[in-house]
Amino acid sequence: MSAPHLPLGEGAEFDAIRAMLDEWGPHAVGVGDDAAVVAVPPNEKLVVSTDASVEGVHFRREWMTAAQIGQRAASGALSDLAAMAATPLGILLALSVPERWRDELPELARGVGVAAVAARCLIVGGNLTRGTDLALTITVLGCTAVPLRRAGMRPGDRLFVTGRLGGPGAALRALLAERPPGLTHLERFVAPIPRLDEARWLAEHGAAAAIDISDGLLADGAHLARASAVSLAIDLAAVPCVDGVLPSEAATSGEEYELLVAVPDDVELDVAEFRRSFGIDLTRIGVALAPAGDPVLVDGRAPSVFGHDHLR
Amino acid sequence: MSAPHLPLGEGAEFDAIRAMLDEWGPHAVGVGDDAAVVAVPPNEKLVVSTDASVEGVHFRREWMTAAQIGQRAASGALSDLAAMAATPLGILLALSVPERWRDELPELARGVGVAAVAARCLIVGGNLTRGTDLALTITVLGCTAVPLRRAGMRPGDRLFVTGRLGGPGAALRALLAERPPGLTHLERFVAPIPRLDEARWLAEHGAAAAIDISDGLLADGAHLARASAVSLAIDLAAVPCVDGVLPSEAATSGEEYELLVAVPDDVELDVAEFRRSFGIDLTRIGVALAPAGDPVLVDGRAPSVFGHDHLR
Repeated sequence: MSAPHLPLGEGAEFDAIRAMLDEWGPHAVGVGDDAAVVAVPPNEKLVVSTDASVEGVHFRREWMTAAQIGQRAASGALSDLAAMAATPLGILLALSVPERWRDELPELARGVGVAAVAARCLIVGGNLTRGTDLALTITVLGCTAVPLRRAGMRPGDRLFVTGRLGGPGAALRALLAERPPGLTHLERFVAPIPRLDEARWLAEHGAAAAIDISDGLLADGAHLARASAVSLAIDLAAVPCVDGVLPSEAATSGEEYELLVAVPDDVELDVAEFRRSFGIDLTRIGVALAPAGDPVLVDGRAPSVFGHDHLR
Repeated sequence: MSAPHLPLGEGAEFDAIRAMLDEWGPHAVGVGDDAAVVAVPPNEKLVVSTDASVEGVHFRREWMTAAQIGQRAASGALSDLAAMAATPLGILLALSVPERWRDELPELARGVGVAAVAARCLIVGGNLTRGTDLALTITVLGCTAVPLRRAGMRPGDRLFVTGRLGGPGAALRALLAERPPGLTHLERFVAPIPRLDEARWLAEHGAAAAIDISDGLLADGAHLARASAVSLAIDLAAVPCVDGVLPSEAATSGEEYELLVAVPDDVELDVAEFRRSFGIDLTRIGVALAPAGDPVLVDGRAPSVFGHDHLR
């Protein structure tokens, strides 16, 4: 993974790639061959996920700078590695770029680079094409000896959530209504933080299953419940919220990139140590039950609203 | 990699994913977690590439069936593994789907599945979103102990090309002019064959560098030359063409997915055995020279036209 870039050819495509490589400096390696070559550590498995961020679907241009769009797209993709407690190895960036975005490519690239540096991984490849929408399709590569999966939870496991929920949803509601969002809410929307180190700590301390909350706590809780063939009983009052957001809003708020984690009942979890280590909360919000028809129960009832469906 | 799929949730997004999984049957595994987990064989490296196929840029709807669009996109992505002489491990399919394409998703998926089966690899994950363009961004995972790179060619190496060139370019010219393309030309355009087994044979028999000809022989020859810091002298009359295509057309025709390979002068290559094994030609078309200013010389002169620039 330490190969220098290959010399690139001439033309607009390669000029654009060169401008992006200038932004990335030493944080991109080996770009320019037909494919990237990545060493996976012995005795670990590759963990890989691909995620798209499309203008008009996942964001609007007026909401964020180009660098924020790039950083948010890469952070969202990296969050899927966090959900598996994997260590990031590399990022591939496939860009679809309309003419009107051409001049913003270096800034978009810079944002992707910021996310890569924060995750301590390299940009190892990508693709560039024209398109009607600006779209960033980001593939993230990671590794782990023991992935933390969605299946693996059992009745009796306690449910924890990292951080505080509701910020991105509150920002999104304000942006869609053309009201100015609260600054802390907006920060959570434009610059989500993949909980990579937190996930590995949780896996090392006995967590049995996890998911990242990209579709909302209840929607992703239902995914986790179905995967593990349990039901989740969530105590709405316990859901940790950012200021200015109700628990009922926080529970259905997507784009969070916090983690929902199941921990077996007999595992001691030092929540104070977690808070000291990472500067965010780890909050118990419920328990897994034997499957009860509904995948999620909130204060004992099936919720009417869950979260986000990407084809709605 | 043999895990069953996780139970999926409700809603249009998951219905669409279920319809695709029905098409793939046993050729997709472990779909539905936050990320895919893939074992890379001990002592081999991961080889990974991402490639996009966008409606209006790479194809038009009226040119192909949905299944052909899926198969062509996946085969084109797999060709990047062939160019590295890697063995395919898995495919991730990120789809951007406009409303007008929604009903075609199972057929698109079927075509991707056909390409995966032909390459003897599995579909291990993906992403689904709305978008203005139909776009298939396909990430391919492969492995090899010794990747066949673009750099590695030396002056004196002989240049070989697999198969016969010019078919996809001839089909594309006809389609763009709204003339009916020749059927054999169209077949080469809609159903390219990634030269995976051929590439591994070539690597095992001493090839020093390779590239797949997705941008055209001269354009990709120039990439190979720059990467290896040599110049390529190509004998135009030697370029193997499909019927009805001139060598000058075949040399600048993109979307080929044949391989351009450099073989050291002292390596014996049994071209007849190659033809017997794979049913296609392996043709010597030139030689690598010490760098001479121009990356490619055709019959001793720098060409005026090379091939395709994705941002033109």
